[in-house]
Amino acid sequence: MKSFRKELWFKTQKRREFINITKSIEEAIAESKISEGLVLVNAMHITASVFVNDDERGLHQDFENFLEKVAPEKPHSQYLHNGYEDNADAHIKRQIFGREVVCAITKGELDFGPWEQIFYGEFDGLREKRVLVKIIGDW
Amino acid sequence: MKSFRKELWFKTQKRREFINITKSIEEAIAESKISEGLVLVNAMHITASVFVNDDERGLHQDFENFLEKVAPEKPHSQYLHNGYEDNADAHIKRQIFGREVVCAITKGELDFGPWEQIFYGEFDGLREKRVLVKIIGDW
Amino acid sequence: MKSFRKELWFKTQKRREFINITKSIEEAIAESKISEGLVLVNAMHITASVFVNDDERGLHQDFENFLEKVAPEKPHSQYLHNGYEDNADAHIKRQIFGREVVCAITKGELDFGPWEQIFYGEFDGLREKRVLVKIIGDW
Repeated sequence: MKSFRKELWFKTQKRREFINITKSIEEAIAESKISEGLVLVNAMHITASVFVNDDERGLHQDFENFLEKVAPEKPHSQYLHNGYEDNADAHIKRQIFGREVVCAITKGELDFGPWEQIFYGEFDGLREKRVLVKIIGDW
Repeated sequence: MKSFRKELWFKTQKRREFINITKSIEEAIAESKISEGLVLVNAMHITASVFVNDDERGLHQDFENFLEKVAPEKPHSQYLHNGYEDNADAHIKRQIFGREVVCAITKGELDFGPWEQIFYGEFDGLREKRVLVKIIGDW
Repeated sequence: MKSFRKELWFKTQKRREFINITKSIEEAIAESKISEGLVLVNAMHITASVFVNDDERGLHQDFENFLEKVAPEKPHSQYLHNGYEDNADAHIKRQIFGREVVCAITKGELDFGPWEQIFYGEFDGLREKRVLVKIIGDW
Protein backbone atom coordinates (compact mmCIF):
# COMPACT_ATOMS: atom_id res chain seq x y z
CA MET A 1 0.00 0.00 0.00
CA LYS A 2 1.23 3.48 -0.93
CA SER A 3 0.22 6.74 0.65
CA PHE A 4 0.49 10.39 -0.33
CA ARG A 5 -0.21 13.63 1.53
CA LYS A 6 -0.62 17.20 0.39
CA GLU A 7 -2.05 20.43 1.78
CA LEU A 8 -3.96 23.03 -0.19
CA TRP A 9 -4.02 26.60 1.16
CA PHE A 10 -6.76 29.19 0.75
CA LYS A 11 -7.37 32.77 1.72
CA THR A 12 -10.76 33.89 0.49
CA GLN A 13 -11.65 37.53 -0.20
CA LYS A 14 -15.08 37.13 1.38
CA ARG A 15 -16.37 35.61 4.60
CA ARG A 16 -18.22 32.92 2.64
CA GLU A 17 -17.08 31.46 -0.67
CA PHE A 18 -17.16 28.22 -2.66
CA ILE A 19 -13.99 27.29 -4.55
CA ASN A 20 -13.79 24.49 -7.12
CA ILE A 21 -10.74 22.39 -6.18
CA THR A 22 -11.30 19.45 -8.55
CA LYS A 23 -8.19 20.21 -10.64
CA SER A 24 -5.99 20.41 -7.55
CA ILE A 25 -7.24 16.99 -6.44
CA GLU A 26 -6.63 15.54 -9.92
CA GLU A 27 -3.08 16.94 -9.79
CA ALA A 28 -2.50 15.40 -6.35
CA ILE A 29 -3.66 12.01 -7.67
CA ALA A 30 -1.26 12.31 -10.64
CA GLU A 31 1.61 13.27 -8.29
CA SER A 32 0.85 10.31 -6.02
CA LYS A 33 1.08 7.83 -8.94
CA ILE A 34 -1.59 5.80 -7.12
CA SER A 35 -3.88 4.12 -9.65
CA GLU A 36 -6.34 2.20 -7.44
CA GLY A 37 -7.41 3.53 -4.05
CA LEU A 38 -9.21 6.23 -2.12
CA VAL A 39 -8.59 9.95 -1.76
CA LEU A 40 -9.73 11.72 1.41
CA VAL A 41 -10.17 15.49 1.06
CA ASN A 42 -11.01 17.30 4.31
CA ALA A 43 -11.09 20.80 5.68
CA MET A 44 -8.45 21.10 8.44
CA HIS A 45 -10.50 23.92 10.00
CA ILE A 46 -13.84 23.62 11.74
CA THR A 47 -15.59 26.51 10.01
CA ALA A 48 -15.13 25.16 6.47
CA SER A 49 -16.42 22.23 4.41
CA VAL A 50 -15.33 20.06 1.54
CA PHE A 51 -18.22 18.73 -0.56
CA VAL A 52 -19.16 17.50 -4.04
CA ASN A 53 -21.83 19.23 -6.08
CA ASP A 54 -22.38 21.24 -9.26
CA ASP A 55 -20.28 24.21 -10.45
CA GLU A 56 -23.14 26.58 -11.16
CA ARG A 57 -23.22 30.15 -9.88
CA GLY A 58 -26.99 30.32 -9.31
CA LEU A 59 -26.90 27.09 -7.33
CA HIS A 60 -24.08 28.41 -5.16
CA GLN A 61 -26.21 31.45 -4.32
CA ASP A 62 -29.09 29.07 -3.51
CA PHE A 63 -26.71 27.23 -1.13
CA GLU A 64 -25.77 30.52 0.51
CA ASN A 65 -29.43 31.53 0.85
CA PHE A 66 -30.37 28.13 2.32
CA LEU A 67 -27.54 28.18 4.87
CA GLU A 68 -28.33 31.76 5.88
CA LYS A 69 -31.98 30.80 6.32
CA VAL A 70 -31.34 27.84 8.63
CA ALA A 71 -28.21 29.16 10.41
CA PRO A 72 -28.01 32.95 9.91
CA GLU A 73 -24.78 34.77 10.68
CA LYS A 74 -26.48 37.76 12.32
CA PRO A 75 -27.29 38.90 14.87
CA HIS A 76 -24.03 37.51 16.24
CA SER A 77 -25.53 37.72 19.74
CA GLN A 78 -28.00 34.89 19.04
CA TYR A 79 -25.21 32.34 19.58
CA LEU A 80 -23.59 31.44 22.91
CA HIS A 81 -20.29 30.72 21.15
CA ASN A 82 -20.02 34.34 20.04
CA GLY A 83 -18.52 37.15 22.09
CA TYR A 84 -14.80 37.11 21.51
CA GLU A 85 -15.64 35.07 18.40
CA ASP A 86 -18.38 35.86 15.85
CA ASN A 87 -18.38 32.64 13.83
CA ALA A 88 -20.82 30.23 15.51
CA ASP A 89 -22.91 30.27 12.33
CA ALA A 90 -19.85 29.10 10.36
CA HIS A 91 -19.43 26.08 12.68
CA ILE A 92 -23.10 25.16 12.10
CA LYS A 93 -22.96 25.71 8.33
CA ARG A 94 -19.92 23.41 8.19
CA GLN A 95 -21.87 20.74 10.12
CA ILE A 96 -24.63 20.84 7.50
CA PHE A 97 -22.32 20.73 4.47
CA GLY A 98 -19.82 18.28 6.01
CA ARG A 99 -16.08 18.15 6.72
CA GLU A 100 -14.82 15.82 4.05
CA VAL A 101 -15.34 13.75 0.94
CA VAL A 102 -13.87 10.34 0.20
CA CYS A 103 -13.58 9.62 -3.53
CA ALA A 104 -12.57 6.54 -5.48
CA ILE A 105 -9.47 6.45 -7.67
CA THR A 106 -9.73 4.04 -10.61
CA LYS A 107 -7.05 3.64 -13.30
CA GLY A 108 -5.23 6.67 -11.92
CA GLU A 109 -8.18 9.05 -12.12
CA LEU A 110 -11.00 10.43 -9.97
CA ASP A 111 -13.87 7.97 -10.49
CA PHE A 112 -16.63 10.56 -10.88
CA GLY A 113 -20.07 10.91 -12.40
CA PRO A 114 -20.51 13.46 -15.21
CA TRP A 115 -21.30 16.51 -13.05
CA GLU A 116 -19.36 15.83 -9.85
CA GLN A 117 -17.00 18.63 -8.81
CA ILE A 118 -15.20 19.03 -5.48
CA PHE A 119 -15.57 22.31 -3.58
CA TYR A 120 -13.92 23.99 -0.67
CA GLY A 121 -16.72 25.71 1.25
CA GLU A 122 -15.46 28.63 3.30
CA PHE A 123 -17.81 30.01 5.98
CA ASP A 124 -15.37 32.19 7.96
CA GLY A 125 -12.72 33.34 5.53
CA LEU A 126 -10.43 36.33 5.03
CA ARG A 127 -7.54 34.35 6.57
CA GLU A 128 -5.27 31.46 5.61
CA LYS A 129 -6.86 28.03 5.95
CA ARG A 130 -5.97 24.54 4.77
CA VAL A 131 -7.40 21.42 3.15
CA LEU A 132 -5.75 18.02 3.59
CA VAL A 133 -5.48 15.57 0.69
CA LYS A 134 -4.58 12.03 1.78
CA ILE A 135 -4.40 9.25 -0.77
CA ILE A 136 -3.95 5.56 -0.07
CA GLY A 137 -3.83 2.73 -2.59
CA ASP A 138 -1.60 0.84 -4.99
CA TRP A 139 0.49 1.79 -8.02
CA MET B 1 -3.93 -4.29 -1.35
CA LYS B 2 -6.85 -5.38 -3.53
CA SER B 3 -9.52 -3.17 -5.03
CA PHE B 4 -12.94 -3.76 -6.53
CA ARG B 5 -15.39 -1.50 -8.38
CA LYS B 6 -19.03 -1.84 -9.26
CA GLU B 7 -21.86 0.44 -10.35
CA LEU B 8 -25.48 0.13 -9.26
CA TRP B 9 -28.14 1.65 -11.53
CA PHE B 10 -31.49 3.09 -10.49
CA LYS B 11 -34.51 4.61 -12.19
CA THR B 12 -37.09 5.59 -9.60
CA GLN B 13 -40.80 5.89 -10.36
CA LYS B 14 -41.12 9.06 -8.29
CA ARG B 15 -39.13 12.27 -8.05
CA ARG B 16 -38.09 11.43 -4.48
CA GLU B 17 -37.55 7.90 -3.17
CA PHE B 18 -35.43 5.99 -0.66
CA ILE B 19 -34.16 2.55 -1.76
CA ASN B 20 -32.54 0.04 0.58
CA ILE B 21 -29.32 -1.09 -1.14
CA THR B 22 -27.77 -3.04 1.74
CA LYS B 23 -28.06 -6.42 -0.02
CA SER B 24 -26.41 -5.07 -3.17
CA ILE B 25 -23.48 -3.82 -1.09
CA GLU B 26 -23.20 -7.17 0.71
CA GLU B 27 -23.15 -8.89 -2.70
CA ALA B 28 -20.42 -6.55 -3.96
CA ILE B 29 -18.32 -7.33 -0.87
CA ALA B 30 -18.77 -11.08 -1.48
CA GLU B 31 -17.80 -10.64 -5.16
CA SER B 32 -14.71 -8.65 -4.20
CA LYS B 33 -13.45 -11.43 -1.88
CA ILE B 34 -11.99 -8.66 0.28
CA SER B 35 -12.19 -9.64 3.94
CA GLU B 36 -10.61 -6.65 5.73
CA GLY B 37 -10.98 -3.14 4.38
CA LEU B 38 -13.29 -0.25 3.58
CA VAL B 39 -16.19 0.09 1.18
CA LEU B 40 -17.06 3.52 -0.23
CA VAL B 41 -20.63 3.86 -1.55
CA ASN B 42 -21.37 7.19 -3.23
CA ALA B 43 -23.99 8.72 -5.47
CA MET B 44 -22.39 9.56 -8.83
CA HIS B 45 -25.02 12.27 -9.34
CA ILE B 46 -25.32 15.54 -7.47
CA THR B 47 -29.05 15.39 -6.73
CA ALA B 48 -28.93 12.06 -4.85
CA SER B 49 -27.54 10.79 -1.54
CA VAL B 50 -26.23 7.58 -0.04
CA PHE B 51 -26.80 7.33 3.72
CA VAL B 52 -27.24 4.86 6.58
CA ASN B 53 -30.38 4.84 8.69
CA ASP B 54 -33.44 2.74 9.58
CA ASP B 55 -35.68 0.87 7.11
CA GLU B 56 -39.01 2.13 8.47
CA ARG B 57 -41.70 3.60 6.25
CA GLY B 58 -42.96 6.19 8.75
CA LEU B 59 -39.44 7.46 9.34
CA HIS B 60 -38.84 7.81 5.60
CA GLN B 61 -41.97 9.98 5.38
CA ASP B 62 -40.61 12.01 8.32
CA PHE B 63 -37.35 12.47 6.35
CA GLU B 64 -39.35 13.63 3.31
CA ASN B 65 -41.37 16.06 5.45
CA PHE B 66 -38.24 17.45 7.11
CA LEU B 67 -36.42 17.98 3.81
CA GLU B 68 -39.46 19.63 2.24
CA LYS B 69 -39.74 21.91 5.26
CA VAL B 70 -36.14 23.17 5.14
CA ALA B 71 -35.60 23.02 1.35
CA PRO B 72 -39.00 22.88 -0.37
CA GLU B 73 -39.22 21.90 -4.04
CA LYS B 74 -41.86 24.50 -4.92
CA PRO B 75 -42.26 27.19 -6.00
CA HIS B 76 -39.45 26.35 -8.43
CA SER B 77 -38.94 30.09 -8.97
CA GLN B 78 -37.59 30.60 -5.42
CA TYR B 79 -34.19 29.22 -6.55
CA LEU B 80 -31.71 30.97 -8.86
CA HIS B 81 -30.54 27.61 -10.22
CA ASN B 82 -33.99 26.91 -11.65
CA GLY B 83 -35.21 28.07 -15.05
CA TYR B 84 -34.09 25.52 -17.59
CA GLU B 85 -33.66 23.20 -14.56
CA ASP B 86 -36.18 22.70 -11.74
CA ASN B 87 -34.07 20.71 -9.28
CA ALA B 88 -32.23 23.21 -7.04
CA ASP B 89 -34.08 21.75 -4.05
CA ALA B 90 -32.67 18.30 -4.92
CA HIS B 91 -29.10 19.67 -4.83
CA ILE B 92 -29.77 21.15 -1.37
CA LYS B 93 -31.49 18.02 -0.03
CA ARG B 94 -28.49 15.99 -1.17
CA GLN B 95 -26.17 18.39 0.70
CA ILE B 96 -28.10 17.77 3.92
CA PHE B 97 -28.25 13.97 3.60
CA GLY B 98 -24.71 13.60 2.20
CA ARG B 99 -23.07 12.07 -0.89
CA GLU B 100 -21.49 8.94 0.47
CA VAL B 101 -20.92 6.46 3.24
CA VAL B 102 -17.70 4.68 4.10
CA CYS B 103 -18.25 1.37 5.90
CA ALA B 104 -15.89 -1.13 7.48
CA ILE B 105 -15.48 -4.68 6.16
CA THR B 106 -14.47 -7.19 8.83
CA LYS B 107 -14.12 -10.94 8.21
CA GLY B 108 -15.66 -10.51 4.77
CA GLU B 109 -18.82 -8.79 5.95
CA LEU B 110 -20.26 -5.31 6.46
CA ASP B 111 -19.30 -4.38 10.03
CA PHE B 112 -22.65 -2.90 11.07
CA GLY B 113 -24.68 -2.22 14.18
CA PRO B 114 -28.01 -4.01 14.55
CA TRP B 115 -30.22 -1.49 12.72
CA GLU B 116 -27.86 0.00 10.15
CA GLN B 117 -29.12 -0.17 6.56
CA ILE B 118 -27.70 1.62 3.51
CA PHE B 119 -30.04 3.72 1.38
CA TYR B 120 -29.93 5.39 -1.99
CA GLY B 121 -31.77 8.69 -1.55
CA GLU B 122 -33.16 9.99 -4.83
CA PHE B 123 -34.25 13.64 -4.91
CA ASP B 124 -34.63 14.15 -8.69
CA GLY B 125 -35.56 10.78 -10.14
CA LEU B 126 -37.55 9.40 -13.07
CA ARG B 127 -34.29 8.85 -14.99
CA GLU B 128 -31.32 6.49 -14.90
CA LYS B 129 -28.76 7.32 -12.24
CA ARG B 130 -25.81 5.50 -10.70
CA VAL B 131 -24.13 4.64 -7.41
CA LEU B 132 -20.43 3.73 -7.22
CA VAL B 133 -19.19 0.95 -4.95
CA LYS B 134 -15.42 0.99 -4.44
CA ILE B 135 -13.80 -1.51 -2.10
CA ILE B 136 -10.17 -1.56 -0.99
CA GLY B 137 -8.52 -4.00 1.40
CA ASP B 138 -6.94 -7.42 1.68
CA TRP B 139 -8.11 -10.99 1.00
CA MET C 1 -2.00 -3.65 4.28
CA LYS C 2 -2.82 -3.94 7.98
CA SER C 3 -6.20 -3.46 9.61
CA PHE C 4 -7.40 -2.85 13.14
CA ARG C 5 -10.85 -2.79 14.74
CA LYS C 6 -12.11 -1.51 18.05
CA GLU C 7 -15.47 -0.59 19.60
CA LEU C 8 -16.08 2.29 21.98
CA TRP C 9 -19.12 2.05 24.29
CA PHE C 10 -21.18 4.92 25.68
CA LYS C 11 -24.14 5.35 27.99
CA THR C 12 -25.00 9.01 28.31
CA GLN C 13 -26.80 10.48 31.31
CA LYS C 14 -28.98 12.69 29.10
CA ARG C 15 -31.00 12.11 25.95
CA ARG C 16 -28.67 14.40 23.98
CA GLU C 17 -24.97 14.82 24.67
CA PHE C 18 -21.69 15.51 22.85
CA ILE C 19 -18.64 13.55 24.02
CA ASN C 20 -15.07 14.31 22.94
CA ILE C 21 -13.56 10.97 21.81
CA THR C 22 -10.33 12.30 20.28
CA LYS C 23 -8.10 10.67 22.90
CA SER C 24 -9.77 7.29 22.44
CA ILE C 25 -9.13 7.49 18.69
CA GLU C 26 -5.50 8.48 19.27
CA GLU C 27 -5.16 5.46 21.58
CA ALA C 28 -6.68 3.15 18.96
CA ILE C 29 -4.21 4.45 16.37
CA ALA C 30 -1.32 3.81 18.77
CA GLU C 31 -2.61 0.27 19.49
CA SER C 32 -2.95 -0.44 15.76
CA LYS C 33 0.72 0.48 15.11
CA ILE C 34 -0.44 1.73 11.70
CA SER C 35 1.60 4.77 10.67
CA GLU C 36 0.15 5.67 7.24
CA GLY C 37 -3.51 5.13 6.46
CA LEU C 38 -7.10 6.05 7.19
CA VAL C 39 -9.23 5.72 10.30
CA LEU C 40 -13.00 5.39 9.95
CA VAL C 41 -14.99 6.32 13.06
CA ASN C 42 -18.74 5.69 12.81
CA ALA C 43 -21.75 5.47 15.06
CA MET C 44 -23.08 1.88 14.98
CA HIS C 45 -26.55 3.22 15.90
CA ILE C 46 -28.86 5.27 13.73
CA THR C 47 -29.76 7.93 16.28
CA ALA C 48 -26.17 9.07 16.91
CA SER C 49 -23.44 10.88 14.99
CA VAL C 50 -19.68 11.08 14.86
CA PHE C 51 -18.36 14.45 13.72
CA VAL C 52 -15.38 16.80 13.93
CA ASN C 53 -15.73 20.29 15.37
CA ASP C 54 -14.65 22.49 18.27
CA ASP C 55 -14.65 21.53 21.98
CA GLU C 56 -16.43 24.62 23.28
CA ARG C 57 -19.43 24.44 25.60
CA GLY C 58 -21.25 27.47 24.20
CA LEU C 59 -20.93 26.12 20.66
CA HIS C 60 -22.32 22.75 21.73
CA GLN C 61 -25.37 24.53 23.15
CA ASP C 62 -25.67 26.41 19.83
CA PHE C 63 -25.61 23.03 18.05
CA GLU C 64 -28.35 21.76 20.35
CA ASN C 65 -30.44 24.89 19.76
CA PHE C 66 -29.98 24.67 15.98
CA LEU C 67 -30.95 20.98 15.85
CA GLU C 68 -33.98 21.56 18.07
CA LYS C 69 -35.03 24.44 15.83
CA VAL C 70 -34.93 22.48 12.56
CA ALA C 71 -35.92 19.03 13.94
CA PRO C 72 -37.57 19.48 17.36
CA GLU C 73 -38.05 16.48 19.63
CA LYS C 74 -41.54 17.49 20.76
CA PRO C 75 -44.39 17.11 20.28
CA HIS C 76 -43.54 13.44 19.65
CA SER C 77 -46.80 13.09 17.73
CA GLN C 78 -45.56 15.30 14.87
CA TYR C 79 -43.57 12.35 13.47
CA LEU C 80 -45.03 9.25 11.80
CA HIS C 81 -42.15 7.12 13.13
CA ASN C 82 -43.23 7.81 16.70
CA GLY C 83 -45.84 5.80 18.60
CA TYR C 84 -44.10 2.82 20.12
CA GLU C 85 -40.89 4.85 19.54
CA ASP C 86 -40.35 8.54 20.41
CA ASN C 87 -37.03 9.16 18.66
CA ALA C 88 -37.81 10.25 15.09
CA ASP C 89 -36.15 13.59 15.83
CA ALA C 90 -32.96 11.74 16.80
CA HIS C 91 -32.87 9.96 13.41
CA ILE C 92 -33.21 13.33 11.66
CA LYS C 93 -30.61 15.07 13.84
CA ARG C 94 -28.18 12.26 13.06
CA GLN C 95 -28.83 12.76 9.31
CA ILE C 96 -27.85 16.43 9.62
CA PHE C 97 -24.70 15.86 11.69
CA GLY C 98 -23.64 12.68 9.83
CA ARG C 99 -22.79 9.07 10.71
CA GLU C 100 -19.03 9.00 10.40
CA VAL C 101 -15.72 10.70 9.90
CA VAL C 102 -12.76 9.44 7.93
CA CYS C 103 -9.44 10.88 9.12
CA ALA C 104 -5.89 10.61 7.81
CA ILE C 105 -3.12 8.93 9.78
CA THR C 106 0.34 10.32 9.03
CA LYS C 107 3.53 9.23 10.83
CA GLY C 108 1.43 7.29 13.34
CA GLU C 109 -0.77 10.21 14.37
CA LEU C 110 -4.12 11.79 13.57
CA ASP C 111 -3.37 14.28 10.81
CA PHE C 112 -5.47 17.15 12.16
CA GLY C 113 -5.69 20.90 11.95
CA PRO C 114 -5.15 22.89 15.17
CA TRP C 115 -8.76 22.87 16.44
CA GLU C 116 -10.12 19.58 15.11
CA GLN C 117 -11.64 17.31 17.77
CA ILE C 118 -13.76 14.19 17.21
CA PHE C 119 -17.15 13.95 18.93
CA TYR C 120 -19.71 11.30 19.58
CA GLY C 121 -23.08 13.00 19.19
CA GLU C 122 -25.83 11.21 21.09
CA PHE C 123 -29.43 12.14 20.21
CA ASP C 124 -31.28 9.30 21.95
CA GLY C 125 -29.18 8.25 24.91
CA LEU C 126 -29.65 6.81 28.39
CA ARG C 127 -28.71 3.35 27.06
CA GLU C 128 -25.60 1.52 25.89
CA LYS C 129 -24.50 2.40 22.36
CA ARG C 130 -21.38 1.83 20.31
CA VAL C 131 -18.91 3.52 17.97
CA LEU C 132 -16.76 1.53 15.54
CA VAL C 133 -13.12 2.42 14.91
CA LYS C 134 -11.67 0.75 11.82
CA ILE C 135 -8.13 1.52 10.72
CA ILE C 136 -6.43 0.40 7.52
CA GLY C 137 -2.92 1.21 6.36
CA ASP C 138 0.70 0.21 6.66
CA TRP C 139 3.19 -0.05 9.53
